[in-house]
Amino acid sequence: MGINVAIIGTGLIGGSLGLTLHESPEVQSIIGIDNDYEALQKALQIGAIDKISSLEGVEKAEVVFLCTPLETFPQLIAGIAEHIRPGTIVTDVGSTKQKVMEWMAGLPEGVHVIGGHPMAGSEIHGIQGADRYLFENAVYVLTPGPKTAPEITRQLIELLSVTGAKIKIMEALVHDQMVAAVSHIPHLAAVSLVNLTGGHPDLLMLAAGGFRDTTRVASSNPSLWKGILTTNRSAVLEGLDKLIDNLTQLRSALENNHQDELLAELTRAQMIRSQIPHGQKGLLPAMCDVICVVPDQPGVIGNLGRILGNHNINIVDIEILRVREGDGGTIRLGVSSLEDGLRAVKVLQEESIKVWLR
Amino acid sequence: MGINVAIIGTGLIGGSLGLTLHESPEVQSIIGIDNDYEALQKALQIGAIDKISSLEGVEKAEVVFLCTPLETFPQLIAGIAEHIRPGTIVTDVGSTKQKVMEWMAGLPEGVHVIGGHPMAGSEIHGIQGADRYLFENAVYVLTPGPKTAPEITRQLIELLSVTGAKIKIMEALVHDQMVAAVSHIPHLAAVSLVNLTGGHPDLLMLAAGGFRDTTRVASSNPSLWKGILTTNRSAVLEGLDKLIDNLTQLRSALENNHQDELLAELTRAQMIRSQIPHGQKGLLPAMCDVICVVPDQPGVIGNLGRILGNHNINIVDIEILRVREGDGGTIRLGVSSLEDGLRAVKVLQEESIKVWLR
Repeated sequence: MGINVAIIGTGLIGGSLGLTLHESPEVQSIIGIDNDYEALQKALQIGAIDKISSLEGVEKAEVVFLCTPLETFPQLIAGIAEHIRPGTIVTDVGSTKQKVMEWMAGLPEGVHVIGGHPMAGSEIHGIQGADRYLFENAVYVLTPGPKTAPEITRQLIELLSVTGAKIKIMEALVHDQMVAAVSHIPHLAAVSLVNLTGGHPDLLMLAAGGFRDTTRVASSNPSLWKGILTTNRSAVLEGLDKLIDNLTQLRSALENNHQDELLAELTRAQMIRSQIPHGQKGLLPAMCDVICVVPDQPGVIGNLGRILGNHNINIVDIEILRVREGDGGTIRLGVSSLEDGLRAVKVLQEESIKVWLR
Repeated sequence: MGINVAIIGTGLIGGSLGLTLHESPEVQSIIGIDNDYEALQKALQIGAIDKISSLEGVEKAEVVFLCTPLETFPQLIAGIAEHIRPGTIVTDVGSTKQKVMEWMAGLPEGVHVIGGHPMAGSEIHGIQGADRYLFENAVYVLTPGPKTAPEITRQLIELLSVTGAKIKIMEALVHDQMVAAVSHIPHLAAVSLVNLTGGHPDLLMLAAGGFRDTTRVASSNPSLWKGILTTNRSAVLEGLDKLIDNLTQLRSALENNHQDELLAELTRAQMIRSQIPHGQKGLLPAMCDVICVVPDQPGVIGNLGRILGNHNINIVDIEILRVREGDGGTIRLGVSSLEDGLRAVKVLQEESIKVWLR
């Protein structure tokens, strides 16, 4: 006899959770709740939920996921408070956690509160983007409330194991400071860098290279991000102050021609960045990078895929390396073992491709 | 009877230029000049140059390319000034142009000065990275000196046509302001964002997604970048001031809860960024983006390449879309025509892959 899950907000994340949780033997049924009846219909149709309900539906659930935009939370939490039974686990998927934990503290006594933040996204918004594999290998942070017993958190972790996500337990404050540093502040920096071009076409022509990578995040949904930034206000303000201070310091090093200081900062960044884990996307992490230089021509990517595929070498990750400021015809292929890497070099060399292991 | 080219500095750019210019029917021979004898030997061996010479060799050349690091330019220009004949074209490949044009103004009367900046790079430094295709479809800026006649510039453009680069004529000042905006300032922002993490391993674990893209440029060669930044000091200082101002404005909008202003800035960035040209890497630009959602598992990329390859559909560009803050299993494939795009959707759907055109 499994558990009943309620998903409030059957958009990208809610829909993907539904598709994934459906594959858990623990789950008996999934109740979908949303203001958008079309989204609910679509969720039902693709098998993300089993039935449609109004807010009262939460009284039948053992676990409730709040998957609506952050700004709806205060009202939503007040709305479910009337219906929810003690003993229910309530968790969310919001991008910031301190504010959410404050809001969820308003739920009735006996309801188990665990904040959640699966760090996964898609470029398609809404239920259309729902994807059973969305959370695979993604970091999924949980921030249990102060009154939530560890075994309750363990139950939620167990339920989420089917997602394939990497669960990390954290304090809400720590989470918010961390996502400010790696996500919210870089986001604002990207927004600023893009806006400073003023959209001048000649500038954008030059911007085709590295600038596109640097500013990719600035293409994300503005109103979603307004919600993220405003619910993480204090950590973002603190992070912005640090960024502005640091840029001011770099500015002064450049103005006063302190070349050693400038070089030290550039070198430190290069060193730290080399430590960012990469290739976390594959089920097996990329153990080994194969770099190939190819003519920048149509067909070469398919060709690489074909050659390695014919030799049963799995490409775990692929990246067209745009380095410094332009586009080279250099491609990084991540493979899952050193042995595969060595074989890839051999078979690509046999095809006269310039290739080596990194 | 073709022309003789001298390449001073047979590293990545010089070596790649040599390999490419060798394919021009206009070029009779390529003289390589470098302090690093090993690099010269290697350049000779791969066919980037025809002969090795000392600085005096420039007297035999009709076109001289300065391809050494920017900081060597003052001394190098003084060194070649004694040997160079009037009527010779001297150009360079430095990343900033005003300072270089000042330095090159010291060359003897009658020498034709044209600044140059091919916006291409590779992650392999030195002659090891030399690549005949390095400049293909890259923007290559030329900044003719005030005394250089248009027909001289046309001669250089003609010579460079074999590179496949997109030549743009610009004033040195305009070039420097533009590269500050799209390259130097984003570079400093990336350095700052990376350094602010302090290298904390937990933070770097969360940083595996969008942060890696945003900060990719921070992995570039620190001493090269020290040279770039210091030779473009005034434009970089001006750009940094604008960035700091803009971040301060965003900070104040957030602090004072001016949500409309915040939303307007986020929306403006999204709009401008959508206008950055992409898919400039293929010989034929990607006309059409095919988006597919795949399980985030080994083998899928090779599989996509194989399926499309078997149907003679050329993949011009490939990108694993990491959106918002995590990694999805969504891949963008650029193909060169709408027809190819439609066929790609059809054949991938036949293989039960979730796919659509963007």
